[in-house]
Amino acid sequence: MIKSLGRLGKIQDSRSAMLVQDIEGSVGNYIKDVDGNVLLDVYCQIASIAIGYNNPGLLNLARSEKWVRASVNRPALGVFPPTDWAETLENSFLRVAPKGLNQVFTAGCGSTANEIAFKAAFMYQQTVRRGNKDFTAEELESCLLNEAPGSPDTKILSFRTGFHGTLSATRSKSIHKVDIPSFSWPVAPFPDLRYPLHENVEYNHSEESRCLDATEKLIKKWDSQVAAIIVEPIQGEGGDNHATPYFFKGLREITKRNNVLMIVDEVQTGAGCTGKFWAHEHWELDTPPDFVVFSKRLQSAGVYHNLSTRPPQPFRNFNTWMGDPIRAYQAEFMINEILTHNLAENATVVGEYLKEGLNKLSTLYPTQVSKVRGQGTFIAFDCENTEIRDKIALSMRQHGYDILMIFHKI
Amino acid sequence: MIKSLGRLGKIQDSRSAMLVQDIEGSVGNYIKDVDGNVLLDVYCQIASIAIGYNNPGLLNLARSEKWVRASVNRPALGVFPPTDWAETLENSFLRVAPKGLNQVFTAGCGSTANEIAFKAAFMYQQTVRRGNKDFTAEELESCLLNEAPGSPDTKILSFRTGFHGTLSATRSKSIHKVDIPSFSWPVAPFPDLRYPLHENVEYNHSEESRCLDATEKLIKKWDSQVAAIIVEPIQGEGGDNHATPYFFKGLREITKRNNVLMIVDEVQTGAGCTGKFWAHEHWELDTPPDFVVFSKRLQSAGVYHNLSTRPPQPFRNFNTWMGDPIRAYQAEFMINEILTHNLAENATVVGEYLKEGLNKLSTLYPTQVSKVRGQGTFIAFDCENTEIRDKIALSMRQHGYDILMIFHKI
Repeated sequence: MIKSLGRLGKIQDSRSAMLVQDIEGSVGNYIKDVDGNVLLDVYCQIASIAIGYNNPGLLNLARSEKWVRASVNRPALGVFPPTDWAETLENSFLRVAPKGLNQVFTAGCGSTANEIAFKAAFMYQQTVRRGNKDFTAEELESCLLNEAPGSPDTKILSFRTGFHGTLSATRSKSIHKVDIPSFSWPVAPFPDLRYPLHENVEYNHSEESRCLDATEKLIKKWDSQVAAIIVEPIQGEGGDNHATPYFFKGLREITKRNNVLMIVDEVQTGAGCTGKFWAHEHWELDTPPDFVVFSKRLQSAGVYHNLSTRPPQPFRNFNTWMGDPIRAYQAEFMINEILTHNLAENATVVGEYLKEGLNKLSTLYPTQVSKVRGQGTFIAFDCENTEIRDKIALSMRQHGYDILMIFHKI
Repeated sequence: MIKSLGRLGKIQDSRSAMLVQDIEGSVGNYIKDVDGNVLLDVYCQIASIAIGYNNPGLLNLARSEKWVRASVNRPALGVFPPTDWAETLENSFLRVAPKGLNQVFTAGCGSTANEIAFKAAFMYQQTVRRGNKDFTAEELESCLLNEAPGSPDTKILSFRTGFHGTLSATRSKSIHKVDIPSFSWPVAPFPDLRYPLHENVEYNHSEESRCLDATEKLIKKWDSQVAAIIVEPIQGEGGDNHATPYFFKGLREITKRNNVLMIVDEVQTGAGCTGKFWAHEHWELDTPPDFVVFSKRLQSAGVYHNLSTRPPQPFRNFNTWMGDPIRAYQAEFMINEILTHNLAENATVVGEYLKEGLNKLSTLYPTQVSKVRGQGTFIAFDCENTEIRDKIALSMRQHGYDILMIFHKI
């Protein structure tokens, strides 16, 4: 491994590498490295492998003529959609479209998908503000100079410790943001729940109410400048922070009351791992979110929305590739596997078993294991300090578990 | 086609579609549509198909075991590089690394590659400003609130009618920018050359000097706030605007004199189409650009740079996938084809032949064909007005040429 990374390090930053991977030798939930070590992989390429390594069905798909042709002839989907594109979208993303949303904008990665949702939200709000009229000459000219009114000072509200790729809305870790210019966008508090949940119902409810009030105050402070809020169902990169349906229902009420759009970032929570196909299904909202963003496990990224947020003019939310057909074929297969084999329900069963074990450990070793939390297999616990965390991670690694170490606040 | 687009339009914005493509039926330079029409394709999926449709060598590659495995087991390259990643980078992108640059940061698309270059430039400049010292606590805390000093007001200077995907630096068309917030970044004039070049040497020289002076004045106006400039060798999306090596050499001198980094956006000009592998080779710079960005024809996107612009800390310029191995395999094959068959030189030969013909037409029909310009096969001409342009485009289409219509200023 040292030799491989040394060679790589000469031409590309390899300081973040944990191991050098033997792709062919990795099977199911087990990842193999260049030195022959086999590890149980609960990290799964930063949550982007949905149904295991070298899944036989996926390998067959990748050997099919349609995959081979589409992979070397990648189309510019916005201008030259292939003959099977509509059918592929129907059988993949639309098959699991969140309730109330029937449009899908495909994209290359989670960050760009979030930005596509931001742009759609900005366009929608500005269209409403100008009363559906044509752009003025002043708007069209000033935007080329990055000046108002064409480049308006509209904002996306995000939450403390949230991660969305696109940096002005990301608030998880300084190392990703420091030295980079950012828009002056508001950040609202995210609930800091106490565990175990059943012993802290009253405290947690008031903590969530506090965050809801703060969110609405921020929206009103920048009256009509907040185009949308963006929120993750579970803040993964920020340290596995959860909130209850009460909080998310409250957010939906606030956004409706203030004519603000709601973007749910399911890049890390989507595709079944929380026990539902989409984590926001747990909330049972009366009104669907305006945008649901996906990526990672589905390999294809994109944004669900509905017709009202399709911009009135074409070419406004547009790019060269607009996604990738082979990643949609891959999503189609994986979605079918997840639905056919009830993998979301299975995540609940496996997750409950794991949490039960962790809760027992937590009673025995509270400094090592505390705040056990999670939905489905999206599970975390805290350690009292980083030394204990690193020791556990190293020990797990030596016992053959490749586990994710979140640099969580302590 | 109408039926296919109607079905697609119900679930995805299809107003930008020109035709529905039969991928299997497209061969070499010819694209086939769902109705059986075969068109000579000089547009090539918005300049993203380098060596034709269904190239037999690429089809073989896509049937190889390493392609099949890597395509369904897409790794998170920053954390788990596969065993052949260093070798693949050496044999693909590094094989054609621009002179003076020996690092490559791989990415998903041109827009994100440009943003990766922006981030690297910001990090470099801020590191220099703090004298290579550690971040202050104030910087680390303020950046999470999108406030100075952690989120500094540094800028990227771009050029009028330039296109870079990332909107604050893009200045080509209002329709892409209107209603979207933008950073207050400076825009410099890009030379508006007169044609034919040999009859306008003096005028063009003074036009380029004017633009150079304006660029340096803008940089000095925002003293030390312009971290980098970004420029395309040929402004494609902005209407095929060219400048001479005198202009680009001048930009390099200005950036060196003012400690500003230089990003050359070769997303649309790279991979041989201008007669050199990289269009900026035509300039014969004494000092290489700090960053060269690529995408489109190479299928993989990325940024060339050197060690001095690798950030001092890991995980700062980082994301989940950091590129895609199969697109690097594809680039490796295509680069080998381009070099082995001298396709860049061939673009010069074919391009000169085409320009000769267009110049003859220009003499005969000056309202239909004027300002014939281009390098290699990256060729354009102007029409006197949009009616003439649309008539020519329609007529070409009916004669079997699928040609790109740029909505150019008239």
